[in-house]
Amino acid sequence: MNFKELAAKYDTPLYVYDFNHFTEQFNKLKKSFKARKSIIAYAVKANSNLSVINHFAKLGSGADCVSIGEVKRALLAGVDKYKIIFSGVGKRDDEIKEALKSDILMLNIESEAELKRIEEIAKQLGKVARISIRVNPNIDPKTHPYISTGLHENKFGVDIETAKKLYLYAKKSEFLNPIGIHFHIGSQLTELEPIKEASQIVADLVRSLKAVNIDIKFFDVGGGLGIRYKDEKLIEPYDYAQAILSTLSGLDVTIICEPGRFLVGNGGWFLTKVLYEKENGDKRFVIVDGAMNDLIRPSLYNAYHKVEVLTDNKEMSKANLVGPVCESGDFFAKNVDLPKTNPGDLVVIHSAGAYGFTMSSNYNTRPRAAEIAVMDEKDRLIRRRETFEDLIACEIDYLKE
Amino acid sequence: MNFKELAAKYDTPLYVYDFNHFTEQFNKLKKSFKARKSIIAYAVKANSNLSVINHFAKLGSGADCVSIGEVKRALLAGVDKYKIIFSGVGKRDDEIKEALKSDILMLNIESEAELKRIEEIAKQLGKVARISIRVNPNIDPKTHPYISTGLHENKFGVDIETAKKLYLYAKKSEFLNPIGIHFHIGSQLTELEPIKEASQIVADLVRSLKAVNIDIKFFDVGGGLGIRYKDEKLIEPYDYAQAILSTLSGLDVTIICEPGRFLVGNGGWFLTKVLYEKENGDKRFVIVDGAMNDLIRPSLYNAYHKVEVLTDNKEMSKANLVGPVCESGDFFAKNVDLPKTNPGDLVVIHSAGAYGFTMSSNYNTRPRAAEIAVMDEKDRLIRRRETFEDLIACEIDYLKE
Ligand SMILES: Cc1ncc(COP(=O)(O)O)c(C=O)c1O
Ligand SMILES: Cc1ncc(COP(=O)(O)O)c(C=O)c1O
Repeated sequence: MNFKELAAKYDTPLYVYDFNHFTEQFNKLKKSFKARKSIIAYAVKANSNLSVINHFAKLGSGADCVSIGEVKRALLAGVDKYKIIFSGVGKRDDEIKEALKSDILMLNIESEAELKRIEEIAKQLGKVARISIRVNPNIDPKTHPYISTGLHENKFGVDIETAKKLYLYAKKSEFLNPIGIHFHIGSQLTELEPIKEASQIVADLVRSLKAVNIDIKFFDVGGGLGIRYKDEKLIEPYDYAQAILSTLSGLDVTIICEPGRFLVGNGGWFLTKVLYEKENGDKRFVIVDGAMNDLIRPSLYNAYHKVEVLTDNKEMSKANLVGPVCESGDFFAKNVDLPKTNPGDLVVIHSAGAYGFTMSSNYNTRPRAAEIAVMDEKDRLIRRRETFEDLIACEIDYLKE
Repeated sequence: MNFKELAAKYDTPLYVYDFNHFTEQFNKLKKSFKARKSIIAYAVKANSNLSVINHFAKLGSGADCVSIGEVKRALLAGVDKYKIIFSGVGKRDDEIKEALKSDILMLNIESEAELKRIEEIAKQLGKVARISIRVNPNIDPKTHPYISTGLHENKFGVDIETAKKLYLYAKKSEFLNPIGIHFHIGSQLTELEPIKEASQIVADLVRSLKAVNIDIKFFDVGGGLGIRYKDEKLIEPYDYAQAILSTLSGLDVTIICEPGRFLVGNGGWFLTKVLYEKENGDKRFVIVDGAMNDLIRPSLYNAYHKVEVLTDNKEMSKANLVGPVCESGDFFAKNVDLPKTNPGDLVVIHSAGAYGFTMSSNYNTRPRAAEIAVMDEKDRLIRRRETFEDLIACEIDYLKE
């Protein structure tokens, strides 16, 4: 990647994605599951840019969506509707209606109340809702509490007993067709054992459902495969697939896997330029033109992102890399070794492909960054930089002097 | 406030602002400083809606801005340009240029490098830049580390000795006119003593500058006045003003005060509707249609917001109030007493006027909420709800099949 050239061409702050990396990651995972029928359903929330989704669609990917907006993005970007899943703990009526009308693969259900609501709406529409149920296997994934989701203390899914009850209910309903089962124990997983345990618990449930003539066709193992931000020991896709497959003996199911971060995380960089350096007391600060509104992971999760200044300068010392937003929480890295910088030096923030742009805001009336794709050494804009006019577009008509 | 009527009329999620409350808060603070010339410069970052800024402009307010976007908002909303300050630790060249051309009151400077950059740009434009310098008085405001800003370990301002040096430099420059001094030790301040101490330190600096013929005309005490989220003991505006005034004897300065939260925080509510209830293990969850993308303060700062379900039901038990976003960090309140709810019940999240909408994002492809103003018992839209089309507007032209 010639970051300097890209920054000169598109200006900063800028998100850069390597579509070839996306392809590699997708194929690696797809291949791991080759012993079985499988659908890789890209978790759109990780990076929702239409061109990113379109890229995965062309590779044959499905889409894991958590709002009707994400479903619309997936459809617009060319994802096959029979590979689209609509998940999420809270679906509004209008979302359920639109999802049923769009005839996507299935709605993933997270509570009894939701199941009944979907039945009711399907009835109104004269449709049969294909559903899966998210099971909460009560497994500790050993990750950040904000992104761990598989414990009972989390809001996600239902416990095994409730799941059974709901499947039996759905089986009897004219308007519900239970075709899938789902679990997702957390994000940025780096340990195999919890995944295997969870998969085992859920596979056993599928077996006991089979015994009562409920035939689950889709075994959705969620997303969560971790990536290397720093020095994490990773799960190999092959081992991941084997661990899951080993729990499925005797079951004829299509595996669905919903990776987000694994597919896009390390194929994205956030580029920002140095504005100034300053020292306060014995603290050194390098201030750049990107900020927490562009990439909130360091502030929100205290997440580590490797940062790199593109300079020949070798004079290193500890510094905080911070943005212009008026909060002490606006930082990209704290107390890291950085070379002496000059205004205009380019800073590359690594591993920014997932949960980067999608979480960005206009805080401090900062326009959101542009996004570009690089593929086969060609670069192109996939989202233009916002303008001031964009930011006030929903307000200006209501301003009266 | 008839929240139910408003929710029925404008739908949820919804931000509601009480412009009469804004007026009261503004007048209370303005009156406290009546012994002196003063400018209340509303901190636009707290709530940047054009109609909100316009409301304060009509009351005579100035604007404290931290990006050229905020300066443009202030100008567009009718704030007198001689009451606009452009602050912030990192200003880009184009921002500085535009600010100088707009002829606003002053640019507030936070580092030596920035001072020189502004001098350079003023020279190019053949202008004299009116400036103030932000002094970091190294006072602990005793608040949340993310919003405390007055310690040397923060990125903000320069220490007293550096400030002196910079004022001497500016005084000699043809292109700089040092007319102000600035400090801001933190947000959500509830203790008077740190403010008074900081003010004393900065006032002493003004006196020593006077001795070398540098005549500071604007004494900018920043923002930060706290509000009651729960049961905080607050600083009275009158006491606040007195504490500052008591440090200024012998100085003929105009006081500038830059409140954000104090003016708008408790005049704003976030309205959201119950989708479902569920229980996981022994945990109860009330799931609503608003989420962390709408109001991130609970997730980001672990901030407390009072939540209230509008129902006659009196059956209370502990619950987590959560949104539909696929993160465990998506919550509004944890382990609070909530009545048993039904789908459609309205939930009011209090104290959401400041740092609510401005920090909102489109995470999970969720359109940002609408904002409405209520004044003299009349309600009106001041920002329309985003549509799916708005969300993809910057992307759709680049999607190629
Ligand atoms: C249900 C579900 N599936 C998939 C994902 C994607 O996770 P990751 O990006 O870690 O693969 C998430 C993330 O929150 C999720 O909640
Ligand atoms: C320089 C400056 N002024 C004013 C404010 C407004 O603060 P508050 O909303 O707490 O009054 C801030 C907040 O970050 C600030 O950094």
